[in-house]
Amino acid sequence: MTKILPVIMCGGSGTRVWPESRETLPKQFIPLIGERSTFQTTMQMLDDPAFERPIVISSVDYRFLIADQLREIGAQADIVLEPMRRDSGPAVAVAAGLAARRSPGTVVVVLAADHVVRDQPGLVDLCKKAAEAAKEGYIVTLGVKPDAPATGYGYLRPGAQIHEGGEVLKLEAFVEKPDRATAQSYLDQGYFWNSGNFIFRADVMQAEIAKYEPTIASAAEGAIDAAKMDLGFLVLDEASFQLAPKKSIDYAVMEKTTQAALIPADIGWSDVGSWRAVWELSKRDQHGNSVRGHGVVMDATNVHVRSDETLTTVVGVSDVIVVTTQDAVLVLHHDHGDKVKQLVQQLQRENRREAGEHKRIFRPWGYYQSIDSGARYQVKRIVVKPGERLSLQMHFHRAEHWIVVRGTAEVDCDDLTKLVHENESIYLPMGCKHRLTNPGKIDLELVEVQTGSYLGEDDIVRFQDAYNRG
Amino acid sequence: MTKILPVIMCGGSGTRVWPESRETLPKQFIPLIGERSTFQTTMQMLDDPAFERPIVISSVDYRFLIADQLREIGAQADIVLEPMRRDSGPAVAVAAGLAARRSPGTVVVVLAADHVVRDQPGLVDLCKKAAEAAKEGYIVTLGVKPDAPATGYGYLRPGAQIHEGGEVLKLEAFVEKPDRATAQSYLDQGYFWNSGNFIFRADVMQAEIAKYEPTIASAAEGAIDAAKMDLGFLVLDEASFQLAPKKSIDYAVMEKTTQAALIPADIGWSDVGSWRAVWELSKRDQHGNSVRGHGVVMDATNVHVRSDETLTTVVGVSDVIVVTTQDAVLVLHHDHGDKVKQLVQQLQRENRREAGEHKRIFRPWGYYQSIDSGARYQVKRIVVKPGERLSLQMHFHRAEHWIVVRGTAEVDCDDLTKLVHENESIYLPMGCKHRLTNPGKIDLELVEVQTGSYLGEDDIVRFQDAYNRG
Repeated sequence: MTKILPVIMCGGSGTRVWPESRETLPKQFIPLIGERSTFQTTMQMLDDPAFERPIVISSVDYRFLIADQLREIGAQADIVLEPMRRDSGPAVAVAAGLAARRSPGTVVVVLAADHVVRDQPGLVDLCKKAAEAAKEGYIVTLGVKPDAPATGYGYLRPGAQIHEGGEVLKLEAFVEKPDRATAQSYLDQGYFWNSGNFIFRADVMQAEIAKYEPTIASAAEGAIDAAKMDLGFLVLDEASFQLAPKKSIDYAVMEKTTQAALIPADIGWSDVGSWRAVWELSKRDQHGNSVRGHGVVMDATNVHVRSDETLTTVVGVSDVIVVTTQDAVLVLHHDHGDKVKQLVQQLQRENRREAGEHKRIFRPWGYYQSIDSGARYQVKRIVVKPGERLSLQMHFHRAEHWIVVRGTAEVDCDDLTKLVHENESIYLPMGCKHRLTNPGKIDLELVEVQTGSYLGEDDIVRFQDAYNRG
Repeated sequence: MTKILPVIMCGGSGTRVWPESRETLPKQFIPLIGERSTFQTTMQMLDDPAFERPIVISSVDYRFLIADQLREIGAQADIVLEPMRRDSGPAVAVAAGLAARRSPGTVVVVLAADHVVRDQPGLVDLCKKAAEAAKEGYIVTLGVKPDAPATGYGYLRPGAQIHEGGEVLKLEAFVEKPDRATAQSYLDQGYFWNSGNFIFRADVMQAEIAKYEPTIASAAEGAIDAAKMDLGFLVLDEASFQLAPKKSIDYAVMEKTTQAALIPADIGWSDVGSWRAVWELSKRDQHGNSVRGHGVVMDATNVHVRSDETLTTVVGVSDVIVVTTQDAVLVLHHDHGDKVKQLVQQLQRENRREAGEHKRIFRPWGYYQSIDSGARYQVKRIVVKPGERLSLQMHFHRAEHWIVVRGTAEVDCDDLTKLVHENESIYLPMGCKHRLTNPGKIDLELVEVQTGSYLGEDDIVRFQDAYNRG
């Protein structure tokens, strides 16, 4: 049996489940449900002899996050980076182009990284069945039986079986997000939801894109041809890729192609497109309440509380989601889930950092997080992964005290190099050229106390950087 | 004109407006409305030639808080400390006893420290008028015209004017908190709310307490007679005071006495007895929304958001209070305000620190606050007031790094004494005998990084303490 090449689309920014999901650490990378991110559970599902080593397509911003998350679960993948966001059409074109370079007949399954599928073996089985139809030239979609006239999904109108007695049906029509009345009529007529997963032969998809969206096709080809390897990532060529219009694969191909098929998928699928969906996927008590982390609910029903650290209490308010993060709280009525996106846009207009950035800032070498600040000082927690190193740098306006609380630091300060161990500290005067390395085998954790009259992140002169940052 | 002696009752624990108000820093000491605490605004109101230097009666736990808050507004008072909580009856007995020792005819006004009065000059005027009646032997209450059949207040049934054409009325009946139907009938009959402020002659109140509650009378007298001055506070004698039963002055005297009078008070009074009351006292926009601090309200009405630091957002949820503090969030429906007390009791049963303690812990010398912690470390912000000094102490299980970020520290470490200036640090090894002093004229702020295998507050051996703590 020829193997299927999985391509995971990992570039979304997930504002609908703000404040846990933000531009700098979106939905697909956080454990919204369970202990792992949906990206990780998707990757784990693909650990099956039916699949080749997956390709992950994402934004250049998420490269180290992806590498980290793969490392955490011991999974491997080829990581392809888009220099800018261009929606799913160009991404699928790249997937098809990369697959075709292996062999034009390669069967590809495109999966979203931010969906939950309860019956993962079921999905694997469906992929195998869909692959047979894909080999015959069909572009196969997975159709989910709707349980409500949702207006947030595309709908699929099923036709006859492509083979008598088989599970795969002709797809008669692929229609984009309807209004509520239309959605209800679709439900009555037995339409399916488009789950956003596709199975196709590389050459078939390439031909369809070339036919309906030649600009996307040529931009994707150019971006692959001139792509460059950088620190193990394949970075698509910016000049070519940017020529691709922003268009979803639904609009670009699926609504137009005559080669589409559909396989009904009863696999407990959710695109986790709102906080309400998260609540529905969570374990609830007899009052419909569900608490993740430190929460107390009193005299209320259908409440979902999420808080990692801060005690979060709800009294007498039903049908709400309450999400508490380190720097933002959201109190949201179940029926207003579609307004979270608007809220985030409003916060962006007001230039609030919380709109897009978490308090914990991930870097290729680990992360840092501001834990306190005053008039002339700031305190940060800094964690450096084993073997990693920050850039050689200098600050004009601040001095730094580093106190190592776990692991060992190798500190360069002007011409000196010193090992600093747990419970030791070092002082870096203003203007010194310094660098922090974790030479050890465990995480290095340190507390940094900055003092000075200006403490902005932009007071940094970088002399050398292991991660090719400016 | 003889002056009135104001006595401010300052001992409540204010759980109804948790999480801002907690046992360690209750309602009367926090700026619930405006920039000052209600204790401070009450004190500021008493800065009037009609009044003597006030007496503040409170729990021993709040002595340094009271001193600080007085210092902050430049006010002066005699501070009397109850060694344990005994409700308002014994406190009023002490007030009367202290006043009678000056002169039996002293007119006393007893004021609650946690009420809001919009028309403060109006209250001062009423006190003066009530004082005239008090001189004649009346115990005068301030009656507030009810605007709803509230069940949380005592009610006052007014009688005839004590002097023809005067404002002071005979008080026909003083009845405790009724049920809703009874409250409505009281409203219909023109009853007033008891605002909890009383004006009386010291000897009159003493006689009434002696008549109806002789145990309270003798306990109060004994507690005054054996009281001791400690660091400028008058501490009531524990052995005597504990003999007083816990009883409010309403039950102890007001329901029984035949000498009560009433003066109608239209002074914008609120006892701020619930979050709803706080919302009602706050400035609201045309949707009834009111935001204090960092909040955003979208598609909702009658929302009150309070958050000093954390961005707090409400979408599509109306008629709620959302309070975000550093370590606790409350989402409360307007109609469930009376359940906050229950919530706090539940949190106490679960031994949650947040039930009664703020993240910022006030001490006689200043405050500290945990800002981060990990497996074997904790980071604190410590602020020491000018001239103050922590105890000479030692820890068995932790070492400490101190980084001064503002002001100057004088540090004793075993046999050495050293000045540590801004942007300097010092290391205190495990087991060393150390002491921190602020010898300067401005606040000393430092960041403390503790490392060790046990970081509990109880790992402390105190050798000497300037504040007579154990």
